[in-house]
Amino acid sequence: MGGDHAPAEPVAGAVLSASELDVEITLVGQEPIVRAALTAAGGDSLLASGRLSIVHADDVIAMDEHAASAARSKPNSSLVVATTIVKEGRTDAIVTAGHSGAAMAAALFTLGRIRSVERPALATYFPTIGGRCIVLDIGANADCRPTYLAQFAVMGDAFARLTLGLDQPRIGLLSNGEEESKGNQVTREAHQLLRGLGLHFVGNVEGKDIPAGIADVVVSDGFSGNVAIKMAEGMAKLCFDLVRREASRSLPTKLGGLLMRPAFRGVRKHLDYEEYGGAILLGVDGVVVVAHGRSNARAIRSAVRVAAQCAAGGIIDRIRDGIQSSLSALPRG
Amino acid sequence: MGGDHAPAEPVAGAVLSASELDVEITLVGQEPIVRAALTAAGGDSLLASGRLSIVHADDVIAMDEHAASAARSKPNSSLVVATTIVKEGRTDAIVTAGHSGAAMAAALFTLGRIRSVERPALATYFPTIGGRCIVLDIGANADCRPTYLAQFAVMGDAFARLTLGLDQPRIGLLSNGEEESKGNQVTREAHQLLRGLGLHFVGNVEGKDIPAGIADVVVSDGFSGNVAIKMAEGMAKLCFDLVRREASRSLPTKLGGLLMRPAFRGVRKHLDYEEYGGAILLGVDGVVVVAHGRSNARAIRSAVRVAAQCAAGGIIDRIRDGIQSSLSALPRG
Repeated sequence: MGGDHAPAEPVAGAVLSASELDVEITLVGQEPIVRAALTAAGGDSLLASGRLSIVHADDVIAMDEHAASAARSKPNSSLVVATTIVKEGRTDAIVTAGHSGAAMAAALFTLGRIRSVERPALATYFPTIGGRCIVLDIGANADCRPTYLAQFAVMGDAFARLTLGLDQPRIGLLSNGEEESKGNQVTREAHQLLRGLGLHFVGNVEGKDIPAGIADVVVSDGFSGNVAIKMAEGMAKLCFDLVRREASRSLPTKLGGLLMRPAFRGVRKHLDYEEYGGAILLGVDGVVVVAHGRSNARAIRSAVRVAAQCAAGGIIDRIRDGIQSSLSALPRG
Repeated sequence: MGGDHAPAEPVAGAVLSASELDVEITLVGQEPIVRAALTAAGGDSLLASGRLSIVHADDVIAMDEHAASAARSKPNSSLVVATTIVKEGRTDAIVTAGHSGAAMAAALFTLGRIRSVERPALATYFPTIGGRCIVLDIGANADCRPTYLAQFAVMGDAFARLTLGLDQPRIGLLSNGEEESKGNQVTREAHQLLRGLGLHFVGNVEGKDIPAGIADVVVSDGFSGNVAIKMAEGMAKLCFDLVRREASRSLPTKLGGLLMRPAFRGVRKHLDYEEYGGAILLGVDGVVVVAHGRSNARAIRSAVRVAAQCAAGGIIDRIRDGIQSSLSALPRG
C-alpha cells in the first residue's frame, strides 16, 4: 500500500519477483485493492499457483503521519501487519516503499533490536567506479554516539560479506579529511573504536572517496550519510541536465548526443537506484528493506532480491555474531 | 609559495590577475624564487610598472606542518607575512593556495575575528543548474553550535549580496530532510535561530537541493559541508569516468563522444573549480581567500577576483553590520 506509485508498482514488482526470483511473495494490504492491482499486473496465475498470496490489512499509514505514533496506533496497518507476520515466522522479510520512518518504528516495536545493538541503521548500496559499496547510516539516526558508529561498522561488514561476497570488506569512516586527526568529536572517537574491532578498517574516507570505491563499507552518522547520498543524487542529475543543455547548443553535439545514447543509458543503469534495491534496516531482529518511495516494479524486484539474499544468508545471525565478538572492544553504550 | 604547483602557477595567476583585473598584486615569498617565477611567467614588465611587487619572506609553511603551531612559530613565513601586511593596511586581501589550516590559523592570530563572530567559516561557490550558490562552512569547524550556524547564515548572506548581486539571498540550512522536524540536535536548534534573523530563510535543504539551486546560501557545519562538496566532486568525476568508459564500448558511441566534446567542455567549465575562486574565510577581520591546493593560474585569478570584489565591496563592514543587527536574535554563544 506504500510508495508514490502504490499499489500498482509495488504489486507489479511483487509479480516480477515471484516470477523471476526464487521467492514466495505475501502481499499485505487492503485485499480488494491489492487483488485488482494484481490482476492488472497479470499476477492471477501466481496467486493460483501459490507463489503469491495476500494478507488483508485494513489500515494504511499515510506519508504525512507521525512515524512512531502511526506505527503504535495502527496495528492493522499494512506496515505493522507485514512486520507482525515476520515476527510470527510466517514470512522471512519485509519490503516496503511506504513511510520509511513508520517502517523503522514498526520494525523496532514489533521485531525489536538485535541484542547489544544500540541503534539500527539504514544501509544502502552506492555506485562506485568499480561496482558498488555500502553506506550506512543514511538517515535513521541524525545524532550518533561513537559506539553506534562502531556497531554500524560491524553490521555493514556482515552485510557486505553476505551480499557483496567479500571476505574482508574495507571499512571506511566518513570524515572531513583522511588524517586520523580529522573529523568531529564523534568520528574522532569512533575512529579509535573502529581500529579495535578486528575489521579491515581503512581509516577515514572523504566524500569524494565514496564514488571512487576506496571503501566497501562507509560508516557515517545518519545526518552526514543522508547529506552525502542525496548530494550524489543531485550531482548526478546536475551532470546529466548540463550535458543535455550543452548538447542542445549545436547540430554536431545534438548528433553526438544521439550516438551517445547507449552510453548514457549504460551510465544511468550504473547509477540507477532501481538496480540497487533501496535501503536495508540493519540491527533490528528481522529483515526489513525500505525501498525508495518512488520505486517502480524493477526497483521493488531489486529490493526483494536483497531481502531474499539477506534472509536466506542469515544476516541476522551474522550481525548477532559480529556484534557479540566486537563487544569486548566497545565501551558500554 | 603555497600550493601543489608553487611557485609557478600562483605567480602565473598573479600575472594574469595584474594584467586582466583592476588590481595591484604583492607577491609574498622567498624573493629569488618568486622573481625567477615571475620572469618565467612573463611578469617583469608588471614589476617595472608597479602593478606587481614582491615582499620577501624567509620561511615557508609546508603542507605537513601542524597548522596552528606553524602559524605561531613562523612569523617570517610567507603566509604570516602576507597576513601581517593586510593587518598593517599595506594590502587589502590575501590569496593563498597553501596550507589552508595554517592560513586560517594565521588569519585568526594576526587579523582576529570580527566582533561577535564566534567562529570563522570557509565559504565556497558551488555550481547549480542555474548558476551558482554559496556553501559554508566547508571545513573550518567540524563541530558547531547552533549559534555558529546562525552566524554563518548572516555572513553567507552578506557574501551572496555582494558577490552574487542578490537583494534577498535565499538561505537554506543543510539537513537530512526538508521538514522542520528533521535534522540533528544542532541543526534543529539552528533552524529556530535562523527563522529569527530577518533573512530570507527558506528552511531545511537536502543534499540534492544544492545542485538544484534551491538556495543561494547553504549553511552547514564544517563536517557535513565538507562531506557534501567532496561527494559532489567525486560524483562529477564518477559521471565523467562512466561516460568515458561507456562511450569507449562501440564505434558509434566513440564518434558521438567526439562530436559531444564541446558540450562536455561546457559542462566541465560549469562545474570547474578553476572558475570559482576557492574558498573565502568569512568572519576574520580581513579578506582571506584560500584557493585549492592544486590551483593553476586561472584558478588563482578567480581567487584574486573574489578577493578584490570582497575588499572593494567592503565585505568586512557588511558582515560586521549583519552580525550586529542579528545579535538581538541570537543567544550569547
